[in-house]
Amino acid sequence: MAKKSRAELALRELLRVPGGKPVDLTAYDAGGTPAGPPDKRAGKAATSALGEPLADLQERLFAASTAGDRRRILLVLQGMDTSGKGGTVKHAIGLFNPSGCRIRAFKAPTAEELKHSFLWRIKRALPHPGELGIFDRSHYEDVLIARVRELAPPEEIERRYDEINRFEKSLADDGVTVIKCFLHISYDRQRARLLERLDRPDKHWKFNPSDIDERALWPAYQQAYEIALERCSTPHAPWYVVPADHKWYRNWAVSRLLLEHLRELGPQYPKADFDIAECRARLLAH
Amino acid sequence: MAKKSRAELALRELLRVPGGKPVDLTAYDAGGTPAGPPDKRAGKAATSALGEPLADLQERLFAASTAGDRRRILLVLQGMDTSGKGGTVKHAIGLFNPSGCRIRAFKAPTAEELKHSFLWRIKRALPHPGELGIFDRSHYEDVLIARVRELAPPEEIERRYDEINRFEKSLADDGVTVIKCFLHISYDRQRARLLERLDRPDKHWKFNPSDIDERALWPAYQQAYEIALERCSTPHAPWYVVPADHKWYRNWAVSRLLLEHLRELGPQYPKADFDIAECRARLLAH
Repeated sequence: MAKKSRAELALRELLRVPGGKPVDLTAYDAGGTPAGPPDKRAGKAATSALGEPLADLQERLFAASTAGDRRRILLVLQGMDTSGKGGTVKHAIGLFNPSGCRIRAFKAPTAEELKHSFLWRIKRALPHPGELGIFDRSHYEDVLIARVRELAPPEEIERRYDEINRFEKSLADDGVTVIKCFLHISYDRQRARLLERLDRPDKHWKFNPSDIDERALWPAYQQAYEIALERCSTPHAPWYVVPADHKWYRNWAVSRLLLEHLRELGPQYPKADFDIAECRARLLAH
Repeated sequence: MAKKSRAELALRELLRVPGGKPVDLTAYDAGGTPAGPPDKRAGKAATSALGEPLADLQERLFAASTAGDRRRILLVLQGMDTSGKGGTVKHAIGLFNPSGCRIRAFKAPTAEELKHSFLWRIKRALPHPGELGIFDRSHYEDVLIARVRELAPPEEIERRYDEINRFEKSLADDGVTVIKCFLHISYDRQRARLLERLDRPDKHWKFNPSDIDERALWPAYQQAYEIALERCSTPHAPWYVVPADHKWYRNWAVSRLLLEHLRELGPQYPKADFDIAECRARLLAH
């Protein structure tokens, strides 16, 4: 068992971005399946099999919070359109008890949100102790689309990387395990997925012609991601590059990363702080 | 198919409380399985089989909301301790895409909440258009524990029934389908479940000695529920009594009620509001 655990712990080592070094996303294979199951069928089965241990660890984490344990998880999902942020929530987060999940999808900031610092809306959506928080997009949009679309002055964008690192450090200090996944798809696979959305009437609602305008800025977005991965993959909040051309691998990998982190936390059920025998006697009397 | 659908639509008729008439909960069999699968094994399979149609309808509801459809569902779960409100969220709501679920568990009101009307915190937790909202306890606590424990003057409690009915009517008028489930367990089954929590160290965190104090007030709580069911089961927001001694039946019945209501809503994917051929051509060009 000990040996197996070490082998299983490999995925986070394999996918983690070493921070502080230039990142070249073209060197990452979006169609790869590192350390993954051999094929789609096996991948789906493997993901499904993670459901029980994940839900068990989640319950322990929540139970521990009722006795004062402040630890919790924050999963940040980023990636180009069609990379599968929503699909990951459906299939990977769908393995958990929904009552312990705090999910937030961040869209273009509202007028209210724009009145505040870019981290304001983020801080309001954080998981509570014992919870699994999931961000579908996040504060990283403020150094991604904001950089590509020049939504803020360059010096302001520059400042944000350090601000993000300080913010995420404060989260770690407060018991938040931050897991940031960049869902990495290829330019060709994005075209195929956008075409599929056009071909299927039940997917039209997911399509917006502006998606094509964003796609035209692909190189600029890849560069913006490379900078964010280089500057904000830190020991307390690492980035993982998750190959996402294969949906089944993406779902498995994110589930697996969550499992590895939850196992490392090793949350425990709290001990009873009441007299069990006395309570049993009272119950049996009525 | 048409015939089958009519037969399947029976559960909501079967479990609905006719409002405006005195309710006698002792006449409801908490161990019953009306219109349900024959046994636990079949029940679990039947619930699991509801997952696909439920998730499909949920996606349609959400998709419709992106085109302005304001409809949504609010599931209210009430019941005595151990009746399985949390288990229902885990097993029935777990069938849905978690990104479209807005779940809120209501505890004793905070100091902040007590400064406002009892509906204040409720209104802040409502599902947005396209979502499935779930309340684990609700505004009904303010006519249940509040009545039993005399947390407010009697005339104030009296006023609340009408206030709740007006509030729920306003929800219905705004496109909210309100589904209220009373998870009905027997006094003996509650004892068994509380004893199980005492016997299992992994369940101690769910137990509180005060649960036994509440149990001693069983008749008063049953009466408070009877009054709430009589006065607040309305055409626009009916109450359902869900027999809950069998967990598998409870999970199936709540899932089934959700399915019936979602089918009645019949949400549709919105039509594309863009030029599909032009978008396809643009995509194929790059």
